[in-house]
Amino acid sequence: MAPKLKIALLQLEGFPTKKEAIANAVNQIRTVVKSEGAKLVILPECWNSTYSADEFGRWAEQIPAGETSTALAKVAAECDIYLIGGTYPEADGGKLYNTCPVWGPKGEFLGKYRKMHLFEMDIPGICTFSEPSVLTPGSQFFTFDIGETKVGVGICYDQRFAEFAAIYRQLGCDLLVFPSAFDDYTGPMHFELIAQARALDNSMFVVLCAPARDTTKDYVAYGYSTVCDPWGRVVCHAKEKPTVLTAELDFGMCAEIRKQIPVLKQKRLDKYELIRK
Amino acid sequence: MAPKLKIALLQLEGFPTKKEAIANAVNQIRTVVKSEGAKLVILPECWNSTYSADEFGRWAEQIPAGETSTALAKVAAECDIYLIGGTYPEADGGKLYNTCPVWGPKGEFLGKYRKMHLFEMDIPGICTFSEPSVLTPGSQFFTFDIGETKVGVGICYDQRFAEFAAIYRQLGCDLLVFPSAFDDYTGPMHFELIAQARALDNSMFVVLCAPARDTTKDYVAYGYSTVCDPWGRVVCHAKEKPTVLTAELDFGMCAEIRKQIPVLKQKRLDKYELIRK
Repeated sequence: MAPKLKIALLQLEGFPTKKEAIANAVNQIRTVVKSEGAKLVILPECWNSTYSADEFGRWAEQIPAGETSTALAKVAAECDIYLIGGTYPEADGGKLYNTCPVWGPKGEFLGKYRKMHLFEMDIPGICTFSEPSVLTPGSQFFTFDIGETKVGVGICYDQRFAEFAAIYRQLGCDLLVFPSAFDDYTGPMHFELIAQARALDNSMFVVLCAPARDTTKDYVAYGYSTVCDPWGRVVCHAKEKPTVLTAELDFGMCAEIRKQIPVLKQKRLDKYELIRK
Repeated sequence: MAPKLKIALLQLEGFPTKKEAIANAVNQIRTVVKSEGAKLVILPECWNSTYSADEFGRWAEQIPAGETSTALAKVAAECDIYLIGGTYPEADGGKLYNTCPVWGPKGEFLGKYRKMHLFEMDIPGICTFSEPSVLTPGSQFFTFDIGETKVGVGICYDQRFAEFAAIYRQLGCDLLVFPSAFDDYTGPMHFELIAQARALDNSMFVVLCAPARDTTKDYVAYGYSTVCDPWGRVVCHAKEKPTVLTAELDFGMCAEIRKQIPVLKQKRLDKYELIRK
């Protein structure tokens, strides 16, 4: 029988201090595991820090040595879950990264993904932001296994790159998770669309986990955490407010759909090919 | 000043005979050019034939020597337009292709695109279809120029392949046109979504031109011809009935959006690369 997986996305609100943000996340993780039996819990992008180019340095930690990672490892073990820790700024060797760490059910550190495509947008009067001005891009794809299911990790802006998701499919992933904090201008136009497109193109589940919208912040995140199935359909989504979203993913759908519309086998590799370097 | 282009999509109804279908198309082309000043007219996939694997051979013509092509070349010259002739089955060297011919405003034959990804679907009780059982796939991308604007052509199922559209962007296209006849099961789930995704991923205009829905046919096409802008927004779409859809495309948007969100420049070519062979 094809494996199923109960997941929970925590669309978290922001807090003035890191300490409060961590306490809230740990509490929410405990609650959703107890009430819903989630086996994989996912946190949003930059959930315990200000999302601001000027402030990444101030919030940065070593990963997995820092205080956020220590608390997340502990709650993963306590709850016997896989935990995709969203993202927080990472300091390493004098450089800063936007990094997503992952733990297994014994609290073991499974690895980390550093955002490979750094967010850059210049729409005057609407949103101007440059991660490349302060962050260093990552250079490694990252996958981990939950039983028979391979999971790939990306972060927010990465999802705009069709090749990025397609490489994860080449690596054997059936689930792709993006902690994401889209702005509220492109969010309504693109957030759900991109999730659906990546899911459909690769006949895989795609999950976007966003922070709740907080209009008092300089950078107002869109919210709307979303789960898409391998047909590109939206299974469920949150709205603006802090929300716990759960879904049961049936990975049998991936194989079924790949048989019904065999696009992954029908690529014209004699005319084009996506190469991983 | 960036070029603008008035386009018309003819979501045509079917007719019992090829003669009637051609007469109707020619009449509609004349009308929309006269009333709307369209400079590029687009016809749907398989607009003058039955869409049936068993019958492709019976409807096939040489392209551009056959009767449909002759009539389309003549009306393109008469109306002083670029004409993307939708698709009809092509017979060449004992093989059959699903082919889209294109003419310029002097009636000159600019070339043809043969469907590269052949439609294959097996959803028992819903839709089972196999173009590969009778058709030969094409092996050439095809572009043509309207002034400064490069236009790429694909056909229906091709649009499911993100790489296909991305190659056309690599070739310099700002507009990608797919004569398309999706089935009415995947149509509601995927038709608009794919158009939006291809447009957004490549910051280009994407046009899908479908035949009108006819529930008396064995293969019931979805309809819903669609125009998307480089932000992935739907500019306009038809519904089920025969419809003439017009839009003015402002290609200045492509350059503007590529500057605002520079994803095309930010691909991580050190980590992956889409190669054309």
